[in-house]
Amino acid sequence: MKVLVINAGSSSLKYQLIDMTNEAVLAKGLCDRIGIENSFIKQSKGDEEAVVISKVLKNHKDAIEAVISALTDDKIGVIKSMSEISAVGHRIVHGGEKFNSSAIINENVMEAVRECIDIAPLHNPPNIIGIEACQQIMPGIPMVGVFDTTFHSSMPDYAYLYAIPYELYQKYGIRKYGFHGTSHKYVSERAAELLGKPLSELKIITCHLGNGSSICAVDKGKSIDTSMGFTPLQGLAMGTRSGTIDPEVVTFLMEKEDLTVKGVSNLLNKKSGVLGVSGVSSDFRDLHAAADEGNKRAELALEIFAYGVKKFIGEYIAVMNGVDAIVFTAGIGENNSVIRSQVLKNMDFLGIKIDADKNKIRGQEIDVSTPDAAVRTLVIPTNEELAIARETLRLLK
Amino acid sequence: MKVLVINAGSSSLKYQLIDMTNEAVLAKGLCDRIGIENSFIKQSKGDEEAVVISKVLKNHKDAIEAVISALTDDKIGVIKSMSEISAVGHRIVHGGEKFNSSAIINENVMEAVRECIDIAPLHNPPNIIGIEACQQIMPGIPMVGVFDTTFHSSMPDYAYLYAIPYELYQKYGIRKYGFHGTSHKYVSERAAELLGKPLSELKIITCHLGNGSSICAVDKGKSIDTSMGFTPLQGLAMGTRSGTIDPEVVTFLMEKEDLTVKGVSNLLNKKSGVLGVSGVSSDFRDLHAAADEGNKRAELALEIFAYGVKKFIGEYIAVMNGVDAIVFTAGIGENNSVIRSQVLKNMDFLGIKIDADKNKIRGQEIDVSTPDAAVRTLVIPTNEELAIARETLRLLK
Repeated sequence: MKVLVINAGSSSLKYQLIDMTNEAVLAKGLCDRIGIENSFIKQSKGDEEAVVISKVLKNHKDAIEAVISALTDDKIGVIKSMSEISAVGHRIVHGGEKFNSSAIINENVMEAVRECIDIAPLHNPPNIIGIEACQQIMPGIPMVGVFDTTFHSSMPDYAYLYAIPYELYQKYGIRKYGFHGTSHKYVSERAAELLGKPLSELKIITCHLGNGSSICAVDKGKSIDTSMGFTPLQGLAMGTRSGTIDPEVVTFLMEKEDLTVKGVSNLLNKKSGVLGVSGVSSDFRDLHAAADEGNKRAELALEIFAYGVKKFIGEYIAVMNGVDAIVFTAGIGENNSVIRSQVLKNMDFLGIKIDADKNKIRGQEIDVSTPDAAVRTLVIPTNEELAIARETLRLLK
Repeated sequence: MKVLVINAGSSSLKYQLIDMTNEAVLAKGLCDRIGIENSFIKQSKGDEEAVVISKVLKNHKDAIEAVISALTDDKIGVIKSMSEISAVGHRIVHGGEKFNSSAIINENVMEAVRECIDIAPLHNPPNIIGIEACQQIMPGIPMVGVFDTTFHSSMPDYAYLYAIPYELYQKYGIRKYGFHGTSHKYVSERAAELLGKPLSELKIITCHLGNGSSICAVDKGKSIDTSMGFTPLQGLAMGTRSGTIDPEVVTFLMEKEDLTVKGVSNLLNKKSGVLGVSGVSSDFRDLHAAADEGNKRAELALEIFAYGVKKFIGEYIAVMNGVDAIVFTAGIGENNSVIRSQVLKNMDFLGIKIDADKNKIRGQEIDVSTPDAAVRTLVIPTNEELAIARETLRLLK
């Protein structure tokens, strides 16, 4: 049984074809610059190098056609015909309060996803377009929607409600939703496997640190709090996102810089974060390089980021009354040993101690704690695509 | 030596006359409804009951005149003439980055305080009017300004900077300042005395919980982080203030509810917090009463508040790599044993355990922890007026 996993953005579409008999990735690829000139599709088979093909991709339907054509291609393909694809799993960013689990896609589900556009105007529309394109090109193949928010639907009300008039929550659904749920779920389950203990007995803090970053308190396998909020802007400083700020900074900036609602939102989402502090880059590799050359603001941006992660770890230890394991995942979490050690230094009071040599290892599953540490610190590469494929399979069974 | 302490708001003015030879409060009072009809002055001598006198108080100058007249009154007064007042200590909310200590008031200092109006438009103007009125009525008497922000000027840059473009910090001074500094400083010093240890060896978390609430990490006597931010809106949910929310909630509300910058600011400052969640009251006594009668939203508001305090305690334990004492102060912190126990329940992993009976005691200095708790939990009534009077004396010596 082969499952195609689709993650559709506004001008890009990532995909993986996974053989669920052994969970092997048969092929993975990316359609980029959809609707823009110089569009292309890039695909790699197994561990082989990626092949890039220029192709006019006017819209997501063109992109899905290109994906099927690449997957069934004589040379770079891995299947003979589309009929070998048993199901498609779609990543959907925002399920609002309508979805507390993944869902087999039908017209009712699509309608509910469309109703979430109001609270996820940037994220859900491309997901919807991706699904609709798939439905056109691959009629009759069952599809499943897997939501970034679902894993956090177990948060208690006192954790997800903001202290604003309750009527605004009722009227608009303004509350904390949280994101990266598929990743937090995947790595927390994997952590339990690595620790050899049932998830139901574990308190885990998962740190998904990448372009977007969020932290999650996973108590007995359930998300009970997370750092992102109503949108993915809240919480940690990120590549270009401010994270949490005083709400009055928003109004102050609008007045002083004469910004519209869209203008200030753009400033806080696209020009802030470590990019805004450093003035250098949103890419942590650039920041480390600049800091090594003596750029104080690049160093400061890294410190602000690491300090934020440290604070959330403390929060969630307090909330869970303890922690068994802290998990680092995603681009920065998996590969950036400097940030990991910056976050975790001077945390022995909480039982956290890491081994400097083990911590140098990049991008593989490893316990980096010292043997005497009361808390396990794990690095676990995330695999959202596999998690989506598994969910897809689970729902269709 | 007698010091008059003045805390001037926009339509009220609180004062205390303190004899610094024994730190006894000779008299304290309040001018209220300044510039509004039905204005009055209320004063009490020592522990005696307050006397209320209706009086037309058109402005703060009238109020200061009324204060002097009440203090020197034959019946309710405590001094013979104004000349017995050696100095005046003024509470000033926002010292921005211009003041990292209290200051003897002169024209340069006043100019700097005026320059802070831009970042504290609601708070500094009444403080300035109060000082100017005092200068007119009490010429030649030395005056000192004590700032709410000063104690937090020791925060490191990675704690006080927001992840927004650095130029906006440079241009407007947008950063975390923190407030309630006089209170956090006073109770942390008092905690060290009660614990019989030098402040320089202690890690203390001070929880100032009142109408406005903030928490502070006091490491070796210095504030290294605090929950309020650029303004007193950030951090915990408060009586009517939202505390921290997703910055996109601000823009979302402006769009959906068609609010101006002032409108949304008013909503988040005056109609949110536990009042907004409960729909009942901003007063915790009302909330407990309603919750006891089964009002779920009142209960929820209390839970949200307590959960927020718990999270900040965790944050600051992580940041300081430990904690020796947690201090509760201000209206709620000193008197609300239910909130204290709600905050601290299930925190034994962090060494925090309180004695249910000791915790019932209200409004007095007490160690409420169990004997075996690794962390001391203290209730310490704050005394900002005495702290301001001490600062005034210190600067004038």
